[in-house]
Amino acid sequence: MIEKQYFSRVTALAGGVGGAKLAAGLSQLLAERLTVIVNTGDDFEHLGLRISPDIDTVCYTLAGLSNLDTGWGRANETWNALRTISELGGLDWFKLGDQDIGLHLERSRRLREGETLSQITQDFCQAFNIQSNVLPMSDQEVSTWVFTENEELSFQEYFVHQQCKPNVKGFRFEGAEIAKPAPGILEDIAEAEIIVICPSNPWVSIGPILAVPGILESLIDKQVIAVSPIIGGKAIKGPAAKMYSELGFTPSALAVARQYKDFLSGFVLDQVDQNLERETKNLGIQTYVTDSLMKTNQDRVRLAKEVIKFGERLI
Amino acid sequence: MIEKQYFSRVTALAGGVGGAKLAAGLSQLLAERLTVIVNTGDDFEHLGLRISPDIDTVCYTLAGLSNLDTGWGRANETWNALRTISELGGLDWFKLGDQDIGLHLERSRRLREGETLSQITQDFCQAFNIQSNVLPMSDQEVSTWVFTENEELSFQEYFVHQQCKPNVKGFRFEGAEIAKPAPGILEDIAEAEIIVICPSNPWVSIGPILAVPGILESLIDKQVIAVSPIIGGKAIKGPAAKMYSELGFTPSALAVARQYKDFLSGFVLDQVDQNLERETKNLGIQTYVTDSLMKTNQDRVRLAKEVIKFGERLI
Repeated sequence: MIEKQYFSRVTALAGGVGGAKLAAGLSQLLAERLTVIVNTGDDFEHLGLRISPDIDTVCYTLAGLSNLDTGWGRANETWNALRTISELGGLDWFKLGDQDIGLHLERSRRLREGETLSQITQDFCQAFNIQSNVLPMSDQEVSTWVFTENEELSFQEYFVHQQCKPNVKGFRFEGAEIAKPAPGILEDIAEAEIIVICPSNPWVSIGPILAVPGILESLIDKQVIAVSPIIGGKAIKGPAAKMYSELGFTPSALAVARQYKDFLSGFVLDQVDQNLERETKNLGIQTYVTDSLMKTNQDRVRLAKEVIKFGERLI
Repeated sequence: MIEKQYFSRVTALAGGVGGAKLAAGLSQLLAERLTVIVNTGDDFEHLGLRISPDIDTVCYTLAGLSNLDTGWGRANETWNALRTISELGGLDWFKLGDQDIGLHLERSRRLREGETLSQITQDFCQAFNIQSNVLPMSDQEVSTWVFTENEELSFQEYFVHQQCKPNVKGFRFEGAEIAKPAPGILEDIAEAEIIVICPSNPWVSIGPILAVPGILESLIDKQVIAVSPIIGGKAIKGPAAKMYSELGFTPSALAVARQYKDFLSGFVLDQVDQNLERETKNLGIQTYVTDSLMKTNQDRVRLAKEVIKFGERLI
């Protein structure tokens, strides 16, 4: 798979589906020279299971085990536990496949026994034969809450159960102020030549990572490149564009660049957003325009190569 | 399926596999006129799931969902969660199928929310379209411990993990002294014309039920019939015969009759144990000799009919 050697050490920040795709491209080029720091603000307890949706999506995607149709969950999955729960009149709104439940049972058991999420994630990556380093943003619990017009909703209640329908007024990352970056994160960022902010939701995927004290500060002097999760004013997947609108911003790649501008060196825009290049440069950010839509694994690897080359040019 | 109407109200006491077979035969004849009181001494917590092996075996068997090859678990089961747990290096010694895990997840959730095991079991029976009444012996936790030569083992540790290999010196039913019979049990026994002790292990399946204060006492004036779980000196399944030997008794149907003699009116012996009939009668217990091995569903229904008729004769 590796056509050319890429020697840069890269640390990527990622949420779920979109971020995982670019992370998988980077991982195929960089193997153990890539670390992915993953959002855990969506983590929650459901049916007694501790679920880390973004970590699992990143791990399944990097391991080649992900369901390419849905973007979440595993390929060749069965649904017999959930069907039984439905038949018994139980809680079936969060879709958990059988293999996925196996992983949640084992992670939950180890967490109850006092192991850390980063240690467990490392062991799972080894079992899945993942060569890159996947780290949760923190071993302490940080929970994303969504302010809506009428109430405050837990992230999964907003995202899955209410299907992102309520109008968003703001966010709160409960526990972030006392969370610490998972062991190795700050050293890893310090050693990385390039930091890549994957095309994940800036509000609820990248936002919680940057809310962990120390992580944002550690990016200030680094070469940080973001890939826009907004293309042509729309999010490829998920509520990012809807959130920008509801919070009073025009959803666009430019809005993303503005949000990251304090620590951004370079910004990858899709070709349909070429018209935003000048305004992005006016923010003091270098730009790179390409086809940033990742439909196939080839797309992931190609975009990853372009991102690394862009980053190496900026160093 | 019902060839003749059986009008007696029957309450059966049962453990897992063997007991569940006779209970299923009785259930097909009596429908809602049958109550099955089930051992919960084997219940345990595993992978964060609260598991009630005997209740589940009884329910799966009465619902026609059980795996006829193994006697435990469900037919047409998949094992994808457990395989994932194995791949992740987790605890895989207790075999949990995917549909089974679904039930455990839902039961555990409801128990955590404060519902009682008897309420949950009743709802599950309704979902499984079971017409008979299945009750745990108690809504309080009672845990069977097995004294062995060197240590005290939890029941599942002895039974599944160590495969009944250690020598047994005795048993302890932790929590039994402060447990109460589940709601309805004492009324149900009082109203029943016939009490049937199913062919379950007298030490670790029927013993814990009788250790719940009030249950044994309520049997004293009733017509109580037991079906021997020991045939020709051997247990059909499980460690009952081995336990008799290790505790200093010759394993035989007679040993079972002696164990129950204080409250037993009638005893069903297999035809291979006809030679034990006289000694059983000498204990003041009526006897009935038949083919008591249940290989097919026809066998279960036939034996259930014979047991009811024998009981009706004694009333």
